[in-house]
Parts: sequence; structure tokens; C-alpha cells
Amino acid sequence: MEFEGVYPAIITPLNTENKFKEKEFRKVVEFNINSGANGFWVSGGTGESIYISPNEIKNVIKSAVDQTQDRAKIIAHVGSITTKESQILAESAANSGANAICAVPPFFYPPNLQTIIKHYKAISEASGNLPFFVYNLPQSTGTEITPLMMSEIKSEIPNTAGLKHSGPKFTDMTGFINLNLSCFIGNANLMLPALTLGASGCIDGPLNAAPELWANIWNAFKKNNLLEAMEAQEKAIKFSNVIRDFDMHSSIKEIISYRLKIDCGSPVLPLPQLTKSEKSELISEVKQMNIIDIS
Amino acid sequence: MEFEGVYPAIITPLNTENKFKEKEFRKVVEFNINSGANGFWVSGGTGESIYISPNEIKNVIKSAVDQTQDRAKIIAHVGSITTKESQILAESAANSGANAICAVPPFFYPPNLQTIIKHYKAISEASGNLPFFVYNLPQSTGTEITPLMMSEIKSEIPNTAGLKHSGPKFTDMTGFINLNLSCFIGNANLMLPALTLGASGCIDGPLNAAPELWANIWNAFKKNNLLEAMEAQEKAIKFSNVIRDFDMHSSIKEIISYRLKIDCGSPVLPLPQLTKSEKSELISEVKQMNIIDIS
Amino acid sequence: MEFEGVYPAIITPLNTENKFKEKEFRKVVEFNINSGANGFWVSGGTGESIYISPNEIKNVIKSAVDQTQDRAKIIAHVGSITTKESQILAESAANSGANAICAVPPFFYPPNLQTIIKHYKAISEASGNLPFFVYNLPQSTGTEITPLMMSEIKSEIPNTAGLKHSGPKFTDMTGFINLNLSCFIGNANLMLPALTLGASGCIDGPLNAAPELWANIWNAFKKNNLLEAMEAQEKAIKFSNVIRDFDMHSSIKEIISYRLKIDCGSPVLPLPQLTKSEKSELISEVKQMNIIDIS
Amino acid sequence: MEFEGVYPAIITPLNTENKFKEKEFRKVVEFNINSGANGFWVSGGTGESIYISPNEIKNVIKSAVDQTQDRAKIIAHVGSITTKESQILAESAANSGANAICAVPPFFYPPNLQTIIKHYKAISEASGNLPFFVYNLPQSTGTEITPLMMSEIKSEIPNTAGLKHSGPKFTDMTGFINLNLSCFIGNANLMLPALTLGASGCIDGPLNAAPELWANIWNAFKKNNLLEAMEAQEKAIKFSNVIRDFDMHSSIKEIISYRLKIDCGSPVLPLPQLTKSEKSELISEVKQMNIIDIS
Repeated sequence: MEFEGVYPAIITPLNTENKFKEKEFRKVVEFNINSGANGFWVSGGTGESIYISPNEIKNVIKSAVDQTQDRAKIIAHVGSITTKESQILAESAANSGANAICAVPPFFYPPNLQTIIKHYKAISEASGNLPFFVYNLPQSTGTEITPLMMSEIKSEIPNTAGLKHSGPKFTDMTGFINLNLSCFIGNANLMLPALTLGASGCIDGPLNAAPELWANIWNAFKKNNLLEAMEAQEKAIKFSNVIRDFDMHSSIKEIISYRLKIDCGSPVLPLPQLTKSEKSELISEVKQMNIIDIS
Repeated sequence: MEFEGVYPAIITPLNTENKFKEKEFRKVVEFNINSGANGFWVSGGTGESIYISPNEIKNVIKSAVDQTQDRAKIIAHVGSITTKESQILAESAANSGANAICAVPPFFYPPNLQTIIKHYKAISEASGNLPFFVYNLPQSTGTEITPLMMSEIKSEIPNTAGLKHSGPKFTDMTGFINLNLSCFIGNANLMLPALTLGASGCIDGPLNAAPELWANIWNAFKKNNLLEAMEAQEKAIKFSNVIRDFDMHSSIKEIISYRLKIDCGSPVLPLPQLTKSEKSELISEVKQMNIIDIS
Repeated sequence: MEFEGVYPAIITPLNTENKFKEKEFRKVVEFNINSGANGFWVSGGTGESIYISPNEIKNVIKSAVDQTQDRAKIIAHVGSITTKESQILAESAANSGANAICAVPPFFYPPNLQTIIKHYKAISEASGNLPFFVYNLPQSTGTEITPLMMSEIKSEIPNTAGLKHSGPKFTDMTGFINLNLSCFIGNANLMLPALTLGASGCIDGPLNAAPELWANIWNAFKKNNLLEAMEAQEKAIKFSNVIRDFDMHSSIKEIISYRLKIDCGSPVLPLPQLTKSEKSELISEVKQMNIIDIS
Repeated sequence: MEFEGVYPAIITPLNTENKFKEKEFRKVVEFNINSGANGFWVSGGTGESIYISPNEIKNVIKSAVDQTQDRAKIIAHVGSITTKESQILAESAANSGANAICAVPPFFYPPNLQTIIKHYKAISEASGNLPFFVYNLPQSTGTEITPLMMSEIKSEIPNTAGLKHSGPKFTDMTGFINLNLSCFIGNANLMLPALTLGASGCIDGPLNAAPELWANIWNAFKKNNLLEAMEAQEKAIKFSNVIRDFDMHSSIKEIISYRLKIDCGSPVLPLPQLTKSEKSELISEVKQMNIIDIS
């Protein structure tokens, strides 16, 4: 399988003007590769791409490809609010050397399946038919991609390579996997359960703050060591639950900033921001768990 | 009541480059005022503002104010994906002379109530505290504004003037109305039912293709003529259901283009487009209904 | 229209052994007819039929028919958990002289449309094809009856006469009404809005505690007096909201007991019971509203 | 852990009068124990208890206890539509020697948490405080039990021993498990994924038609053999999906009847029935899969 393992949904460090901080981003990429990431989901939901300009997104993707140097795969999220902007990003991602592209379905105006397929086809063609991943994220888009819909998407867009399944219906994983796709679970807490059903790996935000925790799950799984994998998943859940308790975007950025001694900035408003005291509390809770190396 | 009656959610005519066609827009405004519109909901969901650049939106709002010349109220939708862009639009709308602003809650990343209020407050302040309308559109935003939430919004933002309620829970209208707000029903098919509960009027897309139908409801209602109002509502439902059968954005633009002998263009992709034959079928169905003056 | 107007969903007075208190029931029937009820929805959700034995239900229906003596229509709810028990009740209701029967769709195990139709057909035939009403109550049954489903039910069961629509999608009323059915709104707060769309009347629990309030809506509506109807609806909403604040079943029984100086008993557990002090508070709130005659 | 492993949700064989066929039931129990069942979930959703009389249910539970003779645990489902009937069943189950009782929350009238706890407490006390299991089945009851609600239930009813989680939110398993409860996944397709998170086992209908398939998962899991467990889960999914394709109740009864050369009868109407040709097709499909011993 070309795409498999631990794929952090990487953050986009931004300055107070919401401009891309490339130097910090490259350090996050480097840290993740060194901690066991097999690939990256770039400029997606965790990456706040919906809030930043197309030119910034192009740079994010280009930097990700350039920094990894084939040490990890790059799946570039190019799903924008209009078909046209998504196509521009798709073409740029292909030119930058991304290994695959991905996109959420059209959102805001509820689409039917034909509208989704038309949108996806246009994007996929703009990328020169790079491997295409669907992003199933109903809590943000309002559209739940079912295995039946996925099957129709695949038959209309033959270079469909897989999906990130972040929807609530975990049991749909089997339906997706039976389509012979590279299926990533989009929930950091369910990597091992998903792998036991045949998933290819995990893509989620919490992974980029401590990739080693999910790399441990992946390595134990590959060694067929169930108990070790279960222990690793349990630790990963504890870590990821702290992140969720404090608001995901802010706390991922804060933990990475703290671990790498860099300043990744804050999420774009209206996303919640952590106060100084909440940041201290977060770091202190992470330290007390004693699960990751942080000092 | 300052804001009441028939408020078309006006389309934004666009050329094939998605640039604002101001001349056509002014004709649509004029046609609507002459057909009985009491105000406009500008650059909202029907106006595709989510797809067009902030500069275009500023021009849309400015043109609406300039064309109406106080003959109708302008409620300018300034809700954008980021707080910052929403503030820029809010300030511009105020400078252009809009009578009120409105905004959907933050979307894509599900917000809690505090995040919504923070976002709304920032926008409202940027407008210099113009009358503020909430846009309850859960099918697009994923967030249902309840009367309880509305009450908290109102107490935090005292210039809250009303809301457009397009959510599925019609029965919530009473809760909103009891807050002493100007409550518009956001469903063209339910104007009269909403008025009987104390609503201030109706805001929806189908209205701008045939404002006279809803003006008839409003006028009969003001004359306390129930039977006449019911007959008017029945006709309005028939007309609006044809629009919905053919996809709302495309068919509203097509009917207006046909009635006013102008070219309002097509909706922005990924919104569905009507084929030539679908357009003919639509116009032919509208003519056969024999409800509006169209030739 | 044979079935129209104010149809209280009548309570079933029960003693502490959950046995039917026929004498009290007849008094409630009499009070309702004298206060303007045009018919009754008997042994339905408000009637707690799901909790009482088939023999009791048979007696409830028989007493209702006998007491009304053609002064009001009887729609007997015979929808039980099994098809067989529903058939037995349907046959008995027909033999007792009920004017129509009604039934919720199968519940607990989510049914598809064919299962619903098969169930309804069996029941309808057991009644000798009495006028048949569908009960759309998705919050209890988990199944939302749409206008499309209703159309298929009507074509399979030609004696389908109407429905009670208690689902959240008020806008579906038009779709139901376009099927030329007797459509009752199942929400006491929405009688007038529904009438303006062509509904036949209102069926709900709060009606049987103060039928005069809804009779006022109905009478004003029939006189084409919109303002009077609106004032009547506003009062009805206030009354019904107090009932909902205190738990519907308990407070309806308590208000009726108080008004008629009888003891209708408490709802069956697990339905919530009002404490003595809650009962006093309820009655005191109702008195303070000064909307109904109560002393 | 007292309650763990493979717990078939056992069917209730019924004759055409819906009377309990005890002899056949005992054979199903025996077959399941011999095929690796560690316990039974008796007279639950698969057992159609909602359709049969309390006296029949008492006999089902009594027979289950008597037939297992401590070779397997009995969790008796006593959740009925009224609190009183549930209590009668709970007391009887305790007297019959059941190891635990379980109950769905109140259904039909949507309950709040206090109503659920009051209902559960009354039932639990009637059983003399046997270990108590919650049955989370929102698709039937309309009520989703969350980990937070479960925590409150546990603190109010200290003999709470666990739950069967059949809701769609698989990720809630971790929250339930962190309450130190015996958590069974109520989805035959997710036994292994649930075990990797710390679940105690699996309870579901398909298990009683081929318990050996889930016993294989359990045994491989206990040996820490991940690959073997994954292969076993894959086979179990294939088998269970055929059952779901043909309607669950009918096909489980048919496969068991065929395998054991007995007549378990059909499900109670309105549950769907298989035609003769559908039954042949089902058996033929099961044979073609070549996963279980059937001839």
C-alpha cells in the first residue's frame, strides 16, 4: 500500500497577520518525520486552510513537499469553497510535487451526489489525476459520505485512492475498506480499532503534537503485538483527550510551540484562543500525564 | 416596527469571471421595489457572498443602498468565514449607509455559544453598533440558534434587532418573537403562518423573482383579510416550489433574467447550473402556472 | 370536510392500579364537548394507551363513542406494538361505533415503508375499512412520515382519510394537504398557522384541559377574523406552554381534575409525576395567567 | 472480570400463536454453549420480548438459567414499557437465578435523565440489586446514553455492572470503559475493535446463529494473536452482513432452524418475514460463503 501509517494533519503556523510562518512549519515537519510520521495531511482542517489565502496555501504545500524530500508522503488538501479555487490549488499542488490531493465535498449549500462528483472530478483533473482522497467530515460539511456514495465516486473518478473517514459511523470503515481503498481513520482515538478492520492508518490533528505515540501503535501493529499496540493506543487517547478538553487547534499549536521552542502563533478567529493561564494549565496537565518527552 | 414586510434575499448577478454585474443588480433592486419589496437582505445565502471577494461584496452593498434611496431598508449580510473579514465588511456596510447588518454564526468548525457571541460582538462593534440581525441557517452552518441562545446573544449585544429564522423548527418562532425582536421567517412558503404568530415578515430567495406574490400576502395581512392572505400564500407556495424543484439559485437567476430581459449569469460552481433545456422547461412551467406576469 | 376543527387528544383517567376510571372519563368528554370540541383523538399518546391493557383500551373507546352520542367525532387510536393487537383493537373500535381509527407506525424496530404499509393495511382491514388516520410522531416512533410516504400509503390504503402531523417539519403540512387529506396539526401552538395553509384542525393534549381556547381560534378562523384568531392563538400558546413546563401528562390531568372537581389520577410510571407542591404551583400559575375560567 | 466474552443476544423461538417454544430454545442455548458462548443476553431486542407477554418472558429467562447450569452467565433483559411490568420481570428473573438483569431506558415518551434513573432504580431494587446492565440502543429508544449519563446512573445505582453499547458513537466506548464497567459492544462487526479499547466482549443477534465465529475472535484475542483475531473478525463480518441483508430477526431464526434441524418459527408481525424463496436464497448464500459448518 502506497499510503499507510501515521499521517499527522499538520498545523499551519501563522503570525498575527495570518501570514504563513514557513520556518516554523519546516521545523514541525522535521520533528514529525523524526518522531515516526509516514506522511502528512497538509492544509486541511487542522491546517486552517479555509481561513488563509490561496497563495499562502500554495506555499504551505510547496514547503511541505520540499522539506520532506521523499521521507514522507504529502497529501495536499485543496478543497476550497469554490470549484475554481480548488482547481487552482490542485494544479499548484501537483506542480509542487505533492503525492496526492484531497478535498472535502462542497459545503454551505447542501450538495447532492452529482454536485459532489462534478466538483471532485474538476479538482482531480486539474491535478493531472494525482491519487485523490475524499475527506469525510460531516460535522463540518453537513454531508456524510457513505460507502455507497464512495463507490460511485470511485467509479466516476478512477484515480480515487482513498479517504479520511472522520464521520461518526465507525462501522462504515468496513464498507470503505471493501472498496479496496486506502482508508485512514480520522480519529486519533480509534487508530488501533480501525487498523484491526483493515484501515491503512490514521490522520488527525493531535498526531502532530506527539507523533511518537501513534508511531508506537503503528509499529506494534506491524509486529503483530496486540498488547503493546493496546497500551500505545491507551496512551495516545489520554494525550489526545487533553488536547480536546482545551480546544483542539489552540492546544495543538501550544504544545508544539512548547516542545520545539518555537512560536506557531494562535488559530485564526473565530477559532477559540487559549489565555495565558489556560496555556500554562494545558502544558502542566500534559507534563503530569508523563506520557511524552516534554520539558 | 422599523424592519417589517417583504424582504427579498436578493441575488448577485455575476459574469462568467464571477465579477459583480452592477447594472443588472440595480435593475433587480428597482424591479423588486416596484413590485412591493419593503427591504432587502443583501449578499446573503441567495446572494452567494460566500463565493465572491470582499471587494465585490462591498460594491454589492453600496449599490443596493444607493439604488434604493431610502425606498426600502437594506440589511447587509457581512458574515464571512473569518471574524476579521466579517468586520471589514461590517465597517464598509455601515459607511455605505446600510440600515442594518446580519451574519451567520461561525461555520465549518462547530462553535460553542461563547465563540458565536465573541464573533458577533466583534462584527457588531465594527459596524458602529448598527441594528444587528442573526441568521439562523442550520442546514448550512451546522448550528441551530435556539430562542435560549438568542436571548443570551441579545443580552450580550444590545443592538440585536432581530433574526432571519430559516431553521426547521417553525415552532421556535414564538420563542424568538417573545424576545421582542424583529423576526423574519426565512421560508417563502411560511410567510402567512409566521405572521399569524407575530413575525415581522419574510426573507427568502424566491421572493426576488416575484415579489408581488409575497407583497399580496403582506397587504392582505395588513388589511386583516384572512381569506385573501391565504389565497396569496397558496400562489406563492406554488411559485416557490417550482423554483425549488429546479435548484434554487439557478432558477431564481433564470426567472429574473427572463422577466427583466437581462442576463444575471449563472451561480458560481459548485452550485448546480441549469442546462439550456432545463431553463426552457422552467420558464414554461412558470408560464403554465399563470400566477405571475411573464412573457 | 367530515373531520375538522378542535380535536382534543383526550387523557385516560386511571386509578392507582392503572384501571380505567370510566365515570371521570365521561365527565372529561362532556366538559370538552360543552367547551367546543368537534371530535376526539382517543387512547393515543396523551391517552397513555401504550401503557394500558387492550381490554381497558376497548372500554375507553366504547365509552367515548357512547358519551358523545354523535355530538363529536371519535378517532380511535388502535396502534399497538404488535400488528395482531392493533387489529383486535381496530375491530373492537369499529364495533363500538368509532368514526375513524388511527395508528402510529410500527416502533422500536425501525421499519421500512413496506413494513409500515403492511402493518397499516392489516389494521385498516380489521376495522372494516373505516376512515384511517396516520399518526406522524417521529419523536416517539423514530419514523418520520414524509408527504411522499403518505402518498404511497394513501394509494395502498384507499380509505386513508388524513393524518395528525406532530413531526418537527411544519413545512410538510402543504405536502400533506396537497394529497387531499384531512390534515390535523399535532401541535397546540400551531393551530392557526396550520389552518392558514389549509389544515383541517388541531389535535393535541393541551386542548383537553381548556378546549375553549382552541375553539376560539377555530371560530374566529371560520368567521375570517384574522386578528381575533391571532389573539386566541396567543392565549392558547401561553396556556399550553405552562403545561409543557410542568410535564405534559401530569399537568393536563391535574388541571382537568382541578377544573372538574374530579380525580383523574396520575400518569403511569415511568412518566413523570408532579409532587403536591408542583401541582399547587401549576394551578397557581394557570390562575395568574387569567386566561381560562378556573376556581 | 465476571462478565466477558461472547454473549449471543438469543432469539425466542415462537409458535404461530406467539407462544414460547421451550424445547427449541433449550436446543439453541445448548448449541451456543457448545460453540463457545460465554453467556447470554436473554429476552432482549433479538428475543422480541417487547412483543410477548410477561409470563412468556419469565419462562424464557427461567429456561435459560436452567439449561445453562452455570456453564454460561445469564443477563436477563427485563426492560418493559412500564416501570411496574419491568419490576415484576426483574423480581422473577432474580428468583429464577439470573446472574444479572438489564433494561433499555423508558421509550416512546422521550425521558430526561431523572426519569431514566428513577425507572432503573425501581427495576434494580426489584431484582434485589443484582448486577445491573444498561442497554444503550438509541435507534430503538430514541435516547442516547452518553458516558456522562452513564456516570450519573452508576453513582445513583451502585450495582450498575456494565452496559451493552449499540449506539452509533463507537468512540464513546472509551468513556464507558473509563467508568470501570463491563462494557459490551452491541455490534457484531466491531467486537475486535472494541476489545482493543478495553471492551469486555460482544453482545449481538448474529452471534447466536454462529457463535463459533465470535468465539474465534475472543480466543485469538486472549492469546494476543492479532492477525488470527483480525481474520476471525473478517469472517464474522461477512456472516453478519448476510444476516443484515435479509432482515436480522427472520434470517437469524432461519439459519438456526436450518443448522439445528428445528423450527424456531417466524418473528412476530410487524417484523418482516422471509418468503420461502428468500429463505432458500439466504441459506444458499450462507453455504457459498463457506465460513460456517452448515449442511
